[in-house]
Amino acid sequence: MQQFTLKEIAEALGARLKGDPGCVITGIAPIQKAKAGDICFLNNLYYREFLKDSQASAVVLSPENAEFCSTNALITENPYLGFAKMAHLFYQRPSIPAGVHPTAVIATSAHIDPSASIGAYCVIGNYVTIGANSIVRAHTILGDEVKIGNDCYLYENVTIYHRVTVGHRVTLHSGVIIGADGFGLAKDDKHQWVKIPQVGGVTIGNDVEVGANTCIDRGALEDTLIEEGVKLDNLIQVGHNVRIGAHTAIAGCVAIAGSANIGRYCMIGGAASINGHISIADRTMIGATASVANTIKQPGAYSSGVPAQPHKKWRRILGRLMQLEDIMRRLRKLERLNA
Amino acid sequence: MQQFTLKEIAEALGARLKGDPGCVITGIAPIQKAKAGDICFLNNLYYREFLKDSQASAVVLSPENAEFCSTNALITENPYLGFAKMAHLFYQRPSIPAGVHPTAVIATSAHIDPSASIGAYCVIGNYVTIGANSIVRAHTILGDEVKIGNDCYLYENVTIYHRVTVGHRVTLHSGVIIGADGFGLAKDDKHQWVKIPQVGGVTIGNDVEVGANTCIDRGALEDTLIEEGVKLDNLIQVGHNVRIGAHTAIAGCVAIAGSANIGRYCMIGGAASINGHISIADRTMIGATASVANTIKQPGAYSSGVPAQPHKKWRRILGRLMQLEDIMRRLRKLERLNA
Amino acid sequence: MQQFTLKEIAEALGARLKGDPGCVITGIAPIQKAKAGDICFLNNLYYREFLKDSQASAVVLSPENAEFCSTNALITENPYLGFAKMAHLFYQRPSIPAGVHPTAVIATSAHIDPSASIGAYCVIGNYVTIGANSIVRAHTILGDEVKIGNDCYLYENVTIYHRVTVGHRVTLHSGVIIGADGFGLAKDDKHQWVKIPQVGGVTIGNDVEVGANTCIDRGALEDTLIEEGVKLDNLIQVGHNVRIGAHTAIAGCVAIAGSANIGRYCMIGGAASINGHISIADRTMIGATASVANTIKQPGAYSSGVPAQPHKKWRRILGRLMQLEDIMRRLRKLERLNA
Repeated sequence: MQQFTLKEIAEALGARLKGDPGCVITGIAPIQKAKAGDICFLNNLYYREFLKDSQASAVVLSPENAEFCSTNALITENPYLGFAKMAHLFYQRPSIPAGVHPTAVIATSAHIDPSASIGAYCVIGNYVTIGANSIVRAHTILGDEVKIGNDCYLYENVTIYHRVTVGHRVTLHSGVIIGADGFGLAKDDKHQWVKIPQVGGVTIGNDVEVGANTCIDRGALEDTLIEEGVKLDNLIQVGHNVRIGAHTAIAGCVAIAGSANIGRYCMIGGAASINGHISIADRTMIGATASVANTIKQPGAYSSGVPAQPHKKWRRILGRLMQLEDIMRRLRKLERLNA
Repeated sequence: MQQFTLKEIAEALGARLKGDPGCVITGIAPIQKAKAGDICFLNNLYYREFLKDSQASAVVLSPENAEFCSTNALITENPYLGFAKMAHLFYQRPSIPAGVHPTAVIATSAHIDPSASIGAYCVIGNYVTIGANSIVRAHTILGDEVKIGNDCYLYENVTIYHRVTVGHRVTLHSGVIIGADGFGLAKDDKHQWVKIPQVGGVTIGNDVEVGANTCIDRGALEDTLIEEGVKLDNLIQVGHNVRIGAHTAIAGCVAIAGSANIGRYCMIGGAASINGHISIADRTMIGATASVANTIKQPGAYSSGVPAQPHKKWRRILGRLMQLEDIMRRLRKLERLNA
Repeated sequence: MQQFTLKEIAEALGARLKGDPGCVITGIAPIQKAKAGDICFLNNLYYREFLKDSQASAVVLSPENAEFCSTNALITENPYLGFAKMAHLFYQRPSIPAGVHPTAVIATSAHIDPSASIGAYCVIGNYVTIGANSIVRAHTILGDEVKIGNDCYLYENVTIYHRVTVGHRVTLHSGVIIGADGFGLAKDDKHQWVKIPQVGGVTIGNDVEVGANTCIDRGALEDTLIEEGVKLDNLIQVGHNVRIGAHTAIAGCVAIAGSANIGRYCMIGGAASINGHISIADRTMIGATASVANTIKQPGAYSSGVPAQPHKKWRRILGRLMQLEDIMRRLRKLERLNA
């Protein structure tokens, strides 16, 4: 890690500095664990109690919390964003020298920018293009006609099938599979499945990040579409012909069925599931474990998760749930008697 | 893509042709986007409104919809199956020349049919057999004593542990893991876990397809069994000793616990979960996100998913759900008063 | 498989032998399928009916069941644990000769114990250390500064990012990704996402096993922590800064959000989900598909899954569920009328 003066950090964050501009910061730490030389941030009111005893040399916090801070403070309306910017100061991804590892197997028709880096045992197909400063780490496989933009970072063991287009500044984590066949099946007269060839591709916009072991299937006829700025966590399934609108963030283990059309600036909680052939309005929030069965036209927050209960209590509730028809019938009878 | 006359397509589909048999078709497109030269299909009534304005040169549709079609028509009872067959005409998987890539590491005791293709950096274990015309793409790993039948297609980065048997015409997508240890644990006196060695294998029948990053564990003592014609989507977990009956299709993100016995011709929706040690009758349909806790003896449709609601509404409903015992008690009291 | 006398097996298990100590056992089989020469075990009362007709040469069972056994018996209080120990006698993981495969790419600063084994096409980063007798199978990738203890077994195609510490006797299955970035995002003024660099690492204790395609993210500032003896099944997502306490077992497809703090000796059923920033007490059991939304302070069993119902029945129940507010209102009105 490098070190910075508080003044340098304040400028990088666009924050107001209260205290010693020359104070040297050598690291970032959580508020409860920060030591001298560390900077921490306070975002959540829950952690404010730690402020008075923190050993941190400085704290990034909001104007409302500044009065509670007895050490150096960087004051900003959005301390969490301040933390993000600060962390970028202290931490950069390890740089990889440009060039192609001698063990990489590269089709002669592939075009790799000389500033790009291709790791050991990569396999790069026909007519692939890789843009300036992009890094493709070891064991990553790019199928025929894949296009990777500039300043991308593909971690180890990414697999991209043929005819997938990836924008600029895209990060793909290990185990990501892009462009596998969508789950398209027709039934024949014997009730056996006939595969529908998946002829479309996948288009991924600029500034997208895709988490480990997430799968994005290719379209049946047209492309599956991940718009710019979308952030996908780990172990997400994106079915064929799905569209995910720009700047939407989706947490881990979400299942998105084919042809779902998810709007822009949405947030989808972990382990949620999205039905196929439905639409979700821009700026919709879906709670963790919710199951979106139908189109959502109205932005807002939606949920359907049931929080875990003590098992015996839940068994009794489940029993009553199964009797709801009966409860309603008996209620109606009482209403008639009391009418 | 190739091109075909409508007459050729009609014959391939076994469809009745209404219109110009010599019309040349150069591609397939969705009904809303088809241009001159394209053929489209109409399966879903919802899309019938697009029929009158479609620029397609021909439409595959059912007899009931034929009257609404003003351009060339291919009439068949099952337009979706027609689409599947048609897409196979236009699209074939890229052929790979037979032979073993010089970087593949192959055990001397392995037997690879001369017509098979083994990609870069594959690792093939002892006593492996690979049948005629099978394609094993780059970076795929086959453990000792794995048997792969004829005409299989293993995409890049498939991992198969030792003693797994795969039938003919099987497709395995990237990231698939077959034969990892089942989750078998016994507790010792200190409440610590003792692993139960997983001694069984996995048997996969003919014409099976397995989606990206899906895992099929090996059996504890006997084989986990995926019967012929089964289609598995992405990111599915198949526990040890599971049996999945022939021609069953399972959508993405389904969790199948150990020793579940799933019948033939079943359909299981995305993100569903199947309890261990239960059976599901042939021809059962499980809805998306449903949780099958108990044996299902009666074929039919089953579900338990709760569709997402506006968050505030759902919070109120949840509150009442937790009071169901109380509601029942109060209802009974009123019934006594009114008896 | 090897063979053992019943006396040898009884000693290995610490079980009481009833019958012929010299009886030769050549294999383990399920009770319904065991043949002469096989040993089986009886753990579940459900299987007791198979005891009288079993062809097994011996049965491992509990004192209560001993009287029902007409063949040789090994009697122990915990037959399932006996089975586990027995299976270890008959089955060992194939031994791999020590040494580094010539195709492995190893940084010169890495330290690999001479008794360790490194498979084909592995990529080992700078300052990696690998302990005695550890096995790293083909295609596994270890990032810079990864530490692997003694007697570990990393299957093919494991990917470990930089600065991850793994204890002794740890097993990692294929497709496991450890140390990918946590899902940390801050919103900027334009409602676009700014990535928070994930500066922490991952620490994995002794005797941990991680199933296929499971992901464990690195911490934001500090390490994600998997304590000793933890057993994780396949396709689990472990978010950044999670702590999983010692000897906890988690079944497949569980989603664990960031900063969840899971206690020791817990058991979490398949497809459950755990909210972020909550704690779960030691010795808590979470049912399959349950959704833990809030901190659990009291050990015990918790659940929230709804078992699948016939679809039409569930539709009616769902309809009533959505009317629960109305049901409560009408109930109150009746109560007032009857007051």
